[in-house]
Amino acid sequence: MEKKDMQEQVVINGVEQFRGFAKEGRCASYIPMLAERNPDHLAVSVIGPDGYEVRAGDSEELFTLQSVSKVLTFILACMDKGLPYVLERVDVEPTGDTFNSIIRLESHQPGKPFNPMINAGAITVSSMLTGHSPSEKLTKLLHFLQQITGRALTINEAVFQSEWQTANRNRALAYYLMDSGFLDCPVEEALEVYLKQCAIEVTVTDLAKIGLVIAHDGYHPLLKTQLFSKEVAKMAKALMVTCGMYNASGKFAAFIGLPAKSGVSGAILAAVPSHASLHSPFPTGCGIGIYGPAIDEIGNSVAGVQLLKYLATKWQMTIF
Amino acid sequence: MEKKDMQEQVVINGVEQFRGFAKEGRCASYIPMLAERNPDHLAVSVIGPDGYEVRAGDSEELFTLQSVSKVLTFILACMDKGLPYVLERVDVEPTGDTFNSIIRLESHQPGKPFNPMINAGAITVSSMLTGHSPSEKLTKLLHFLQQITGRALTINEAVFQSEWQTANRNRALAYYLMDSGFLDCPVEEALEVYLKQCAIEVTVTDLAKIGLVIAHDGYHPLLKTQLFSKEVAKMAKALMVTCGMYNASGKFAAFIGLPAKSGVSGAILAAVPSHASLHSPFPTGCGIGIYGPAIDEIGNSVAGVQLLKYLATKWQMTIF
Amino acid sequence: MEKKDMQEQVVINGVEQFRGFAKEGRCASYIPMLAERNPDHLAVSVIGPDGYEVRAGDSEELFTLQSVSKVLTFILACMDKGLPYVLERVDVEPTGDTFNSIIRLESHQPGKPFNPMINAGAITVSSMLTGHSPSEKLTKLLHFLQQITGRALTINEAVFQSEWQTANRNRALAYYLMDSGFLDCPVEEALEVYLKQCAIEVTVTDLAKIGLVIAHDGYHPLLKTQLFSKEVAKMAKALMVTCGMYNASGKFAAFIGLPAKSGVSGAILAAVPSHASLHSPFPTGCGIGIYGPAIDEIGNSVAGVQLLKYLATKWQMTIF
Amino acid sequence: MEKKDMQEQVVINGVEQFRGFAKEGRCASYIPMLAERNPDHLAVSVIGPDGYEVRAGDSEELFTLQSVSKVLTFILACMDKGLPYVLERVDVEPTGDTFNSIIRLESHQPGKPFNPMINAGAITVSSMLTGHSPSEKLTKLLHFLQQITGRALTINEAVFQSEWQTANRNRALAYYLMDSGFLDCPVEEALEVYLKQCAIEVTVTDLAKIGLVIAHDGYHPLLKTQLFSKEVAKMAKALMVTCGMYNASGKFAAFIGLPAKSGVSGAILAAVPSHASLHSPFPTGCGIGIYGPAIDEIGNSVAGVQLLKYLATKWQMTIF
Repeated sequence: MEKKDMQEQVVINGVEQFRGFAKEGRCASYIPMLAERNPDHLAVSVIGPDGYEVRAGDSEELFTLQSVSKVLTFILACMDKGLPYVLERVDVEPTGDTFNSIIRLESHQPGKPFNPMINAGAITVSSMLTGHSPSEKLTKLLHFLQQITGRALTINEAVFQSEWQTANRNRALAYYLMDSGFLDCPVEEALEVYLKQCAIEVTVTDLAKIGLVIAHDGYHPLLKTQLFSKEVAKMAKALMVTCGMYNASGKFAAFIGLPAKSGVSGAILAAVPSHASLHSPFPTGCGIGIYGPAIDEIGNSVAGVQLLKYLATKWQMTIF
Repeated sequence: MEKKDMQEQVVINGVEQFRGFAKEGRCASYIPMLAERNPDHLAVSVIGPDGYEVRAGDSEELFTLQSVSKVLTFILACMDKGLPYVLERVDVEPTGDTFNSIIRLESHQPGKPFNPMINAGAITVSSMLTGHSPSEKLTKLLHFLQQITGRALTINEAVFQSEWQTANRNRALAYYLMDSGFLDCPVEEALEVYLKQCAIEVTVTDLAKIGLVIAHDGYHPLLKTQLFSKEVAKMAKALMVTCGMYNASGKFAAFIGLPAKSGVSGAILAAVPSHASLHSPFPTGCGIGIYGPAIDEIGNSVAGVQLLKYLATKWQMTIF
Repeated sequence: MEKKDMQEQVVINGVEQFRGFAKEGRCASYIPMLAERNPDHLAVSVIGPDGYEVRAGDSEELFTLQSVSKVLTFILACMDKGLPYVLERVDVEPTGDTFNSIIRLESHQPGKPFNPMINAGAITVSSMLTGHSPSEKLTKLLHFLQQITGRALTINEAVFQSEWQTANRNRALAYYLMDSGFLDCPVEEALEVYLKQCAIEVTVTDLAKIGLVIAHDGYHPLLKTQLFSKEVAKMAKALMVTCGMYNASGKFAAFIGLPAKSGVSGAILAAVPSHASLHSPFPTGCGIGIYGPAIDEIGNSVAGVQLLKYLATKWQMTIF
Repeated sequence: MEKKDMQEQVVINGVEQFRGFAKEGRCASYIPMLAERNPDHLAVSVIGPDGYEVRAGDSEELFTLQSVSKVLTFILACMDKGLPYVLERVDVEPTGDTFNSIIRLESHQPGKPFNPMINAGAITVSSMLTGHSPSEKLTKLLHFLQQITGRALTINEAVFQSEWQTANRNRALAYYLMDSGFLDCPVEEALEVYLKQCAIEVTVTDLAKIGLVIAHDGYHPLLKTQLFSKEVAKMAKALMVTCGMYNASGKFAAFIGLPAKSGVSGAILAAVPSHASLHSPFPTGCGIGIYGPAIDEIGNSVAGVQLLKYLATKWQMTIF
């Protein structure tokens, strides 16, 4: 068996081995459209800097970014406004709280959201994107994603509508942020951007490409272009490690040790820097996209996390 | 100038450049013995896997480990009891709270401390060390440290007494943990171990050696011996990144990006894995010890953090 | 001097004596229209069951009910829906938190508001009023108030607009309540009712009449009509004692000992049951209305509280 | 049937009717000695100002004061040190939190306990009692109680030992208070006083006599002596209403409306001021003692609360 085939076999085996873990989770129920997904799906894509991709499972499935989008808008806001502007409005500290918690906005004056990976911080970040309307801001974001993935992504309107109708908790967060001065545009605009960015549809291959660019510090190895600064890329990776997997980020760092961001759709984005995969048989410096819609109570794909842990161990990938 | 001399010059310059930052902090006031330290001191040591060390500033100063000891007892507890035992009693999630916060023990049932780097978790860890008495436990810890540093370390009794007298907040934490079932030995024993481990005296060279072993996944490159398992070492590094710099850990990860642990004595321990220093002119895979007793409100050495940031940037060291 | 004159003299002296206390407070600044009020105003009216009224100070001033309205909508909701319906949606426990706190909605599942005197609970109560629109609900409330006061009250549109524009914190509360299932109508409707009820204009005489009816357990001694049930009236008085003066309710009960409700407009409503004024020279069972727009940090009229304490002491009125 | 007999019949009927409610609760399990009590016991005593007493149920049972003692040490501390001294160290605001909560000591700086009826505040109060040792302080307290009840009360050593051994949560509170400067004597002394006061044994008749004196503003109608000031008595009643029934105090005020204090032993003390019982067939101004060891989750006697509600309704007793 050739080396490439061997690696493909690893991901195929992984999907087979961990698909069953889906039983221990369930599709996000608070967003009606997500509840209808097939909980047994599991897919993975890994892409190296030479464009070499291995894929397994239901890799043709389209799914929404959900919280994975938080990394992307953070990067875009930094590109648009500069890091100092962004960091004045959102901190980069993990919290240990659930992603939709509102308590800290009141208990820690002046109510600056703790990091861009929880809903409060992400809504603040979405409010900062440049553009005269939600539509302009989203056009910019989609353009940015098209640069990375090489294809035009679209917003799943049904998912957006479904979330928009039930976004009371996010509205509470947004109005609270507005009251404390941490929102850069009207609430409804910020929420429209935020919920539409969450509803952008991708495949695991798209995720893997995003991970690839972040892994390479903003440089797109296939396009041979620097899309965003090294400084912003490194901060994004730091945020993914400290806050990316909701309030299981500490455990994820401890047991897996890769910059990653999950979404309640069951998406996981991982960025493996070259230096974190020196001993990997896979080309060093890769991006990983995973999809497994059955999530645990914290919001992470149950089978997806197991699969990622398996790959990290198998290929000796870790930043630690 | 030789390469070695150049690197020595870097740390000498760094100390000169950042010593003035001490003015923006002050020595820990709540521990009387720490309040008497000279706030203008600043020292650093960097040691590579070949034993090569560069040093600058007040590097002969002895200072107490304080919270830096939390990493060491965590490692020792894992060696003694195994990871599963330890993780059943202490979680590995960052909190965003101050190091001595008690709120989460009540608000998050069943009151398991969130991580071993905050006081609550560290007291739980100290209670787990094997030994029939505080003295036995500390003997083990000191022996472990002697293996790493190559010299017999001692406990500063005056600092211990000073902390013991004013340990009401830690006693509150310990009794709360006892009430919730997260203490493995009587409160006073756990506190004696905890406060004595905090009072162990080291130099920046000692710290650098500790960092070196952690950087090399538990392997002591000078002794050519594996002191503890790779798994535990990687978890220690993950904890240092997510929780090591108190509730500025997120910012430290974002701006510096190295596994590090600070103490209110002004100590900072950093472990730079080989792969995180591939582009460094300094031998890859080093340990760093820093001492600068003027700390900020959060508890981190003001000048020390600046100096570490300078070195990380200068030598292109980062895990991200 | 006749007895009646003597009592009038007491309130006149009281106003003179305590007007100066206004200096220690300031008009509510977060509602622009309130910030423009004259902070030195102070007025009081006391009305007995025979209609006998003593008045002093700026008693012709119109001011808005603000939080005083919370007692009235609570009573109205109980009349409309019955106590069990209301108590299923709002608890009657004091909190010790600020009036606009959101923390407890998250920290105490299932997020039932703790009492109808804090904003969260009051918005829930407003959402329960019967009527097909905010306008219908408010018409009912105004009709109810007209019965009590004998005159048509009106909503100060400018104050309402001023609050409506800056109601982000209340919107956050309302959306949170909606998310948890503790809102009986759409957010914007509930908020319109809530903010308009806050903007109803009264005089101290109107307040005194409201207090009179509550003091007499829902019976209007001038109309000789039972307007609402004794059970609801007693519960309203209990709520006023445990939660009526924001998070100074405990101190108010301890030092003054009368059922009272304050508003950030500087309004205070007090209901003195007959049995609580047995030794009073004033006809037993009275209502008291006070207005003094300079409020303290907690939200209570500084001069108003002093004046009420003076009257309670002078006339030996207390429920304890 | 004579009037006196009729009233005796009321309490006898009440005990019969509500004894069954014990099934919905259970004896306090966290204090071993309390767990052994007979959960089906129910007893009541009502004493009027003329010494007339009606009694029913297991009225010979001795039981410990537990939290009921908090009212008594508050009164004693005020007698010893004066109200201003006491109120500088403990506030009088209800919290809505459980009786042993520690959160607020950290979240509300400077950590002054919110009221003397929660454990934190009660420990602070116990630390304030005058005396050179716990024993001296308790001697004073027992003397004070002997004045009221006319008999020498004793501390149940077995209950004290049982609580002393398991007092970790209270120790946590005490050390936290010590750290914040809200303890007037060493922790162990304060706890010894606190836990011994909790272990003082009484009968329902003793409780009723205590209630009688509080009802009469510190005047003992049988001894015809003023034992403590009216001001302190009124504040005690206010505290009983706003904070006396743990975090069900609001509901108790709303549904029953009498100053009362409960303990986890199943004790309830109620003080009915004369003016709160004008329409009662029972002599106005009485004290009530109740004992029913099966408590609800909040800590109140299940059958006891029902029985007290029955009596309050039957005899038209309420402060509202």
